Amino acid sequence: MPSLSHKATQMPASPIRKLVPYAEQAKKSGKTVYHLNIGQPDIETPQVVLDKMHNLDLKVVEYSHSAGFQSYREGLAKYYKGFNINLNPENEIMITTGGSEALVFAFQTCFNEGDELIIPEPFYANYNGFGVTANVNVVPVTAKIENGFSLPPIEEFEKLITPKTKGILICNPGNPTGYLYSKEELETLRDIVKKYDLFLFADEVYREFCYDGATPYSALNLEGIENNVVLVDSVSKRYSMCGARVGALISKNAEFMAAALKFGQARLSPPTFGQIAGEAALETPQSYFDAVIEEYVERRDILIDGLNKIAGVTCPKPKGAFYAIAKLPIDNADKFCQWLLEEFDYEGETVMLAPATGFYATKGLGQQEVRIAYVLNKASLIKAVKCLEEALKVYPGIV
Amino acid sequence: MPSLSHKATQMPASPIRKLVPYAEQAKKSGKTVYHLNIGQPDIETPQVVLDKMHNLDLKVVEYSHSAGFQSYREGLAKYYKGFNINLNPENEIMITTGGSEALVFAFQTCFNEGDELIIPEPFYANYNGFGVTANVNVVPVTAKIENGFSLPPIEEFEKLITPKTKGILICNPGNPTGYLYSKEELETLRDIVKKYDLFLFADEVYREFCYDGATPYSALNLEGIENNVVLVDSVSKRYSMCGARVGALISKNAEFMAAALKFGQARLSPPTFGQIAGEAALETPQSYFDAVIEEYVERRDILIDGLNKIAGVTCPKPKGAFYAIAKLPIDNADKFCQWLLEEFDYEGETVMLAPATGFYATKGLGQQEVRIAYVLNKASLIKAVKCLEEALKVYPGIV
Repeated sequence: MPSLSHKATQMPASPIRKLVPYAEQAKKSGKTVYHLNIGQPDIETPQVVLDKMHNLDLKVVEYSHSAGFQSYREGLAKYYKGFNINLNPENEIMITTGGSEALVFAFQTCFNEGDELIIPEPFYANYNGFGVTANVNVVPVTAKIENGFSLPPIEEFEKLITPKTKGILICNPGNPTGYLYSKEELETLRDIVKKYDLFLFADEVYREFCYDGATPYSALNLEGIENNVVLVDSVSKRYSMCGARVGALISKNAEFMAAALKFGQARLSPPTFGQIAGEAALETPQSYFDAVIEEYVERRDILIDGLNKIAGVTCPKPKGAFYAIAKLPIDNADKFCQWLLEEFDYEGETVMLAPATGFYATKGLGQQEVRIAYVLNKASLIKAVKCLEEALKVYPGIV
Repeated sequence: MPSLSHKATQMPASPIRKLVPYAEQAKKSGKTVYHLNIGQPDIETPQVVLDKMHNLDLKVVEYSHSAGFQSYREGLAKYYKGFNINLNPENEIMITTGGSEALVFAFQTCFNEGDELIIPEPFYANYNGFGVTANVNVVPVTAKIENGFSLPPIEEFEKLITPKTKGILICNPGNPTGYLYSKEELETLRDIVKKYDLFLFADEVYREFCYDGATPYSALNLEGIENNVVLVDSVSKRYSMCGARVGALISKNAEFMAAALKFGQARLSPPTFGQIAGEAALETPQSYFDAVIEEYVERRDILIDGLNKIAGVTCPKPKGAFYAIAKLPIDNADKFCQWLLEEFDYEGETVMLAPATGFYATKGLGQQEVRIAYVLNKASLIKAVKCLEEALKVYPGIV
């Protein structure tokens, strides 16, 4: 049998997936499991999208242009204009198969083997996988829970910059922290990017999910680094249509876009059905977002207030996305999350959480932290928090 | 501005796309252009698929499992059983975003930088792009038009095998040649694969398109190399739904499949809409395929007979897919194809062909050859062949 590649060995298995068999076993044994571990929202996809799909008048499900349907790119240009971002739909927007493909194309286009990419941790675990795919070395800079996961100081970035450093990647608002960078923090990043001539990859798929009156500030709004900024976007969370697998890769850097398109041409086109859905979603009424934001704010408040009332638990209040990282008085988050599924129940119920260890690249960090996605309705969230409270009374590894 | 990667430079631009501006210009000037250059069939998608999409009862367009919907994998296992291929839907079938993603995952899972992959040329041009993406060196073994593009002799393969050789890739039935490998040719490949312990990647997306009573023989039907065979499949051509972007990566090699799934997990899931369409397509009645095959056979016969009647033109009769490679009495296929669009018309009409140079990795080959996709109706095909005949009377570079 021929051997597999080094990448196949290095490719990380999802830290959450290790828990899946335990969750299945828990359900088989009759327990109710509240899934706070995943980024799959329960929110309904906008009706305009479902209507569009019901009334498709295709006869042949054809390829689109490799950069996506022109009409969709034009629609997206209008969408971004609403955020003071001016884009040419001809060559500054490329539709991709989810934000995932946008990141892979961006990495392939920018990085040579051994190049370094700085990412504030904790970060979305799949960035590691995309790093392996593109042979780039991920270099973490630690954001601290005691600072609410704000951007680490500029000196911390500068300590990490080497001749191999080629870019910085941020997720804003952030998964897994829910942290929303301020304009000032982004300007700090701009200064570093400019000083060292780096790429700034900005994953802004949670743009619409900003709370308490906060408005999102895009990396593309930063002046003076137009050729450095690469924006990654997706319809997945915005319209609760994760399965559409439609995203976008965006940059004002013409050379970058032309090269990325070659990767896009090799795979022919992004999904046609998903693009039709994405284009229809641009007509989603503001009332949809208002209702969704209201729902998430209520959920967040229930969750964060509930968590912070539990003895020994601290959880900064996130201003965006629908995740939070909580610090728990436990010995080991991986053990705890498995124990919750395998050994614990409170009145026949338990909760599935994501150990935060999977979101840190620095070994040893996140062992007392879990990521909680508030993608369940309020009644379930209240019960899930109660489960967690009861669990922390009896978990043998309390510290 | 930060520099781009070596891959960005090496990534080939599609050879056909260079002609696109000339085609656009030709149309602007009022010419009718018959597109025989692309693999986008005009055949209608099966009605069962369109009906399914019209009656979707989704409320949330969710992610699927990273290996695709379980029900779809089970349906595919039944489909393959019809070809005497027994697969476990749990872990031997992974749904991918088109055949393209299946190939990229296969390459990433198997190859280290500098490993070598032997491919009979002429071959599907995007294999080059996927090779660049995975840092694998593509090594061509030339199939000759005078032999009808049959498998090169075993000695030709063995001459190319080095310690770096890790696999052989075939497309069967073939794009761009339409050649269908016999059972004996596949057994020859099996012997090489076994002797040198290589991977055999088999792109079988045209499986249903076999003519003149020929039946397809899959690489997965070969005995004794179960751990070496990796099958790539796609719904794109089978059901004329290229835009669905749904394919599959299949192997009996458990270690390979487990590693490939990690790449699949990083990108979360294949497209949900496309998978629903793909699963519905499994119910396509045989009458659909009968009609499609009949149509393609008639088109092929019109095309091949027409071409071979033109002085100086030879075109082997393909037994599969919907492509043919023709040898023309011309100096340079790239120049000729551009000239057809830019300078030629016959009664206001012209034809767009793909220069075969883009399908050969050996520099200098294919300069007198073009690939023709018979994806137009018969009336158009007749006119397109007439255009070509007239063009060859006046093209200045006739040899």
